[in-house]
Amino acid sequence: MYTAKHMKWWGWGDEDIGFDAGAHPGLWPYAKAVLGVEEENVNLPPVSIDAVRLREAIRHERCLAELRLWMRADQICDSRHERLVHAYGKGLRDLFRMRNGMAEGAPDLVVYPENEHDVLMTIRAAAEHDAVVIPFGGGSNIAGCLERSETHRMVMSLDMRRMRRVLAVDKESLTARIEAGVFGPDLEEQLSGYGLTLGHFPDSFLHSTLGGWIATRSAGMQSDKYGKIEDMVIALRMVTPAGVLATRTVPKSSNGIDVNHLCIGSEGTLGVITEATMQVHPRAESRRTHGYLFLDFESGIEAMHDCVRKECTPSMSRLNDSGKTALSMAFKPPSSKLSQAMTRVMKSYLQMKGFNFARACLMLTTFEGSKGDVTRQHRQVSAIHRRFGAVDLGPSSGKSFESTKYDFPHIRDFLMDRGVTSDVSETATVWSNVVPLYRAASTDLSTAIEESGVKPWVGCHISHSYHSGASLYLTFACQQKHGREMQQYLHAKRVVQQSFIDHGATLSHHHAVGTEHLPWLTDDISPVGVLAIAAIKGGLDPGNVMNPGRLRPSIAPLEEWLRVGGEAAVLSAWK
Amino acid sequence: MYTAKHMKWWGWGDEDIGFDAGAHPGLWPYAKAVLGVEEENVNLPPVSIDAVRLREAIRHERCLAELRLWMRADQICDSRHERLVHAYGKGLRDLFRMRNGMAEGAPDLVVYPENEHDVLMTIRAAAEHDAVVIPFGGGSNIAGCLERSETHRMVMSLDMRRMRRVLAVDKESLTARIEAGVFGPDLEEQLSGYGLTLGHFPDSFLHSTLGGWIATRSAGMQSDKYGKIEDMVIALRMVTPAGVLATRTVPKSSNGIDVNHLCIGSEGTLGVITEATMQVHPRAESRRTHGYLFLDFESGIEAMHDCVRKECTPSMSRLNDSGKTALSMAFKPPSSKLSQAMTRVMKSYLQMKGFNFARACLMLTTFEGSKGDVTRQHRQVSAIHRRFGAVDLGPSSGKSFESTKYDFPHIRDFLMDRGVTSDVSETATVWSNVVPLYRAASTDLSTAIEESGVKPWVGCHISHSYHSGASLYLTFACQQKHGREMQQYLHAKRVVQQSFIDHGATLSHHHAVGTEHLPWLTDDISPVGVLAIAAIKGGLDPGNVMNPGRLRPSIAPLEEWLRVGGEAAVLSAWK
Repeated sequence: MYTAKHMKWWGWGDEDIGFDAGAHPGLWPYAKAVLGVEEENVNLPPVSIDAVRLREAIRHERCLAELRLWMRADQICDSRHERLVHAYGKGLRDLFRMRNGMAEGAPDLVVYPENEHDVLMTIRAAAEHDAVVIPFGGGSNIAGCLERSETHRMVMSLDMRRMRRVLAVDKESLTARIEAGVFGPDLEEQLSGYGLTLGHFPDSFLHSTLGGWIATRSAGMQSDKYGKIEDMVIALRMVTPAGVLATRTVPKSSNGIDVNHLCIGSEGTLGVITEATMQVHPRAESRRTHGYLFLDFESGIEAMHDCVRKECTPSMSRLNDSGKTALSMAFKPPSSKLSQAMTRVMKSYLQMKGFNFARACLMLTTFEGSKGDVTRQHRQVSAIHRRFGAVDLGPSSGKSFESTKYDFPHIRDFLMDRGVTSDVSETATVWSNVVPLYRAASTDLSTAIEESGVKPWVGCHISHSYHSGASLYLTFACQQKHGREMQQYLHAKRVVQQSFIDHGATLSHHHAVGTEHLPWLTDDISPVGVLAIAAIKGGLDPGNVMNPGRLRPSIAPLEEWLRVGGEAAVLSAWK
Repeated sequence: MYTAKHMKWWGWGDEDIGFDAGAHPGLWPYAKAVLGVEEENVNLPPVSIDAVRLREAIRHERCLAELRLWMRADQICDSRHERLVHAYGKGLRDLFRMRNGMAEGAPDLVVYPENEHDVLMTIRAAAEHDAVVIPFGGGSNIAGCLERSETHRMVMSLDMRRMRRVLAVDKESLTARIEAGVFGPDLEEQLSGYGLTLGHFPDSFLHSTLGGWIATRSAGMQSDKYGKIEDMVIALRMVTPAGVLATRTVPKSSNGIDVNHLCIGSEGTLGVITEATMQVHPRAESRRTHGYLFLDFESGIEAMHDCVRKECTPSMSRLNDSGKTALSMAFKPPSSKLSQAMTRVMKSYLQMKGFNFARACLMLTTFEGSKGDVTRQHRQVSAIHRRFGAVDLGPSSGKSFESTKYDFPHIRDFLMDRGVTSDVSETATVWSNVVPLYRAASTDLSTAIEESGVKPWVGCHISHSYHSGASLYLTFACQQKHGREMQQYLHAKRVVQQSFIDHGATLSHHHAVGTEHLPWLTDDISPVGVLAIAAIKGGLDPGNVMNPGRLRPSIAPLEEWLRVGGEAAVLSAWK
């Protein structure tokens, strides 16, 4: 049986699995070069676990007594370690706080429900005794969705990982009823017993849950074929302080406002999703990822768009801009002498064909289906890509991507050890705006980083395409300004998010609103949209039990960090 | 310029266009035979327009004075005719009431906004002066969405037809910003100027609007290719009593709860959709509809499902059961001697091939795209259909369907003239439940009709298929029990709707909740779902200005009609 472990209290990945820097020997030299790092000996590891400051737990004894009435002792935990691993998600501010021993955001208690009744009774007890419940899946969210906003009420982290079963599969209708706490690998393993797959593979796949995906409107790497998570939900159950919201297993309906969509994206503010009936698919017989090299980003975008127009969409198309392409190359595992020699030959060939490696862009494209489908898709897509000047690099760069695709989130920890901040901001826009937005947001972000006096690195990839547009995923990095790391980060983050909004895009394509994107919620969904969400919240959770402070527009949690001179409570606690 | 006319005050279609019974000479003989009609001379036309009883209009002079401040006299109408054509939609109870001169549901006033400001100011005035606003598109709804539920407040029907422009088209992203009051043909004509189509062709296409489609989660005949209307909405604007809810033109987002989905399906209860940015598509170069004859309904369903499994879905697949197949044959235009002879030859051939015409089922399948696409789709689909025992009847039955596809709603009026009730109930379910539900619901419906002492006719077609399931559209007819017509209808309607719910399906796939389906809303979306919707309503429309009484579970509006002996107010008014 797959057992989901907690991630490291201070960073990404399992406690016992470190990031193997030796497997990526080109990464740090590349980072040093592009970021202008001169001092070699930077080494800033996290503080030791004993040095982490943890607020004394608020213990509401009557509430606890009620929880103990129907749950075993091992379902109710308040150990230091449990509180630490549930303190935050894995956003950059989260990592920074934990590395620096600031765990003030930790919950007072962790509850592990094993069935819907446990969830219901925990929420009832919380409502009755004015406590707070923050649903916790894998804790992988990077937008601050798990940020504690209350210091005076008892906060319970409701960790869903024990609710992990595939409850029923309808092989004829290709639907599966699944408990929400299941992690990606466990879910795929259970479904594979039926020859099925959900087809949802976000970067966080190893460390995130079905319920988390639904509550944040997640997108997997193969969304072009299987859709975003909201496209896969057929029915669900969500426990709210007002009772259980439950919908029917029907493909489509006209039953008024679609209440599935009140639960999808609710980010824990209305209740806890306990199970969902999902669209599943037969596992593909065959699967292959090819690399394509384009002359520049613009021609790669045109090729992607043309694939969509021709309804010839592979299950994944991930187009890197020139910066991300260079990073990908630097991230590659060390290669054999032979392979190095072949690379040199390939390079000469490409230069002859007119490729300029400062501008060239790598696209990774996955074909899947029957063997015949894969061959046919590859032929069709290659023909389109060729027309836009691309060269098919074959399956080897695909294999390299497949073997490292879940490693990217480790890079932040690796770089933070070396005094470098790196993070991401992503959005989506219509096709006519993809290139203008890319240029504007990249430039704005670079400028914002330069304003802090260091050299910026900004890269971008596009990995989700739709009939009307696509996502844009910006990655950025810079040397930290010691003592002002978070102000520096928040300035950059604020500028890039504002750039998205100013240029007609959305605050996030698949990372949720959380805390980091709250200041732009009103711009994104209009004041009346915000009012509507507050109204649902008021109706289902009048006691504000569920994840308070989220989906309510506010700049407070970020403003606090931006103030100069460390007046802010959190900063002063740290200094 | 296309000008949308009002439909007949008493029935379907333009005032000046009657149903040409001569074009369907087989229809009445077929109906008489299957319904056991013995008396030839039944003739029950609607009352004359002068005989229609209309409640004296409530006039709220201060509210009216405010409307006149910013609208011209021709935008504010209270003539008898205007009130009559806005009294109801075209549900069976609506037709029955109007035919019998009962227009108590008529609004007191009709307002024709010409821009969003007109809408906003009308709703503000209504909110300030405690009046009611019922948004009105084409008035084609058959679920009682336009039913007046208030007799003491002034009710304004907000007729959107003057807001009919395509405001902007982004040909690169294939999106179009469109005013919500545009009718189907007008919209397609405007889009065709850009070489584009929305691809939404419901049976009501000639007489319904974009805003109405969105507010009721409509489905068009080609939904298998273009999606249901909720799949096409990219952004929208909705004027509510709390202000304008507006969303961004982005393909996908993770900005919390998707507020587009609070507006879609809101059935006029939260506000008025004034415009939407829709996904559009290049017009198909080529298009062809073929008929296929299956041995029975079950094998047709299996073939449809197999097409979905193989991701080989034509833009339309409409499978009739044997009853609906017989009706289609009876509905055909008169044919030439030659064609009759050919039909006889075909029949003999099919009998030789083992077809039993009491069980055989007609499927109509539309292929569209480039000429090559059409040929390829036709080849693939035909191969699947053949494997399930079908015979390709070629494009002639397709042509017959195409020429009459918008005529079906006229049949109810034609039959009511002859003392026959006919109506529809439709739903959706997962593939594993399609056949069991079909059998159960058809049997329950037939039994319910028999209980009123007459011979039932029940037919079914399936015309929207999804990865996980399909819609089921039941049509039923019977001789009216004079003096108890509505009790008889409501008994049948209630039984079939309850059968849908009891067998795991939904209250409607694309006709909305309205009044007719309100009693099943709680079963469908759960009490907490109902509570959530009430909370949104309370937040955006605290004065209950917008279409009151809708999306609030209630059996009252139907109970009234079911009482025995004509005690009910409406019934006694009619007697």
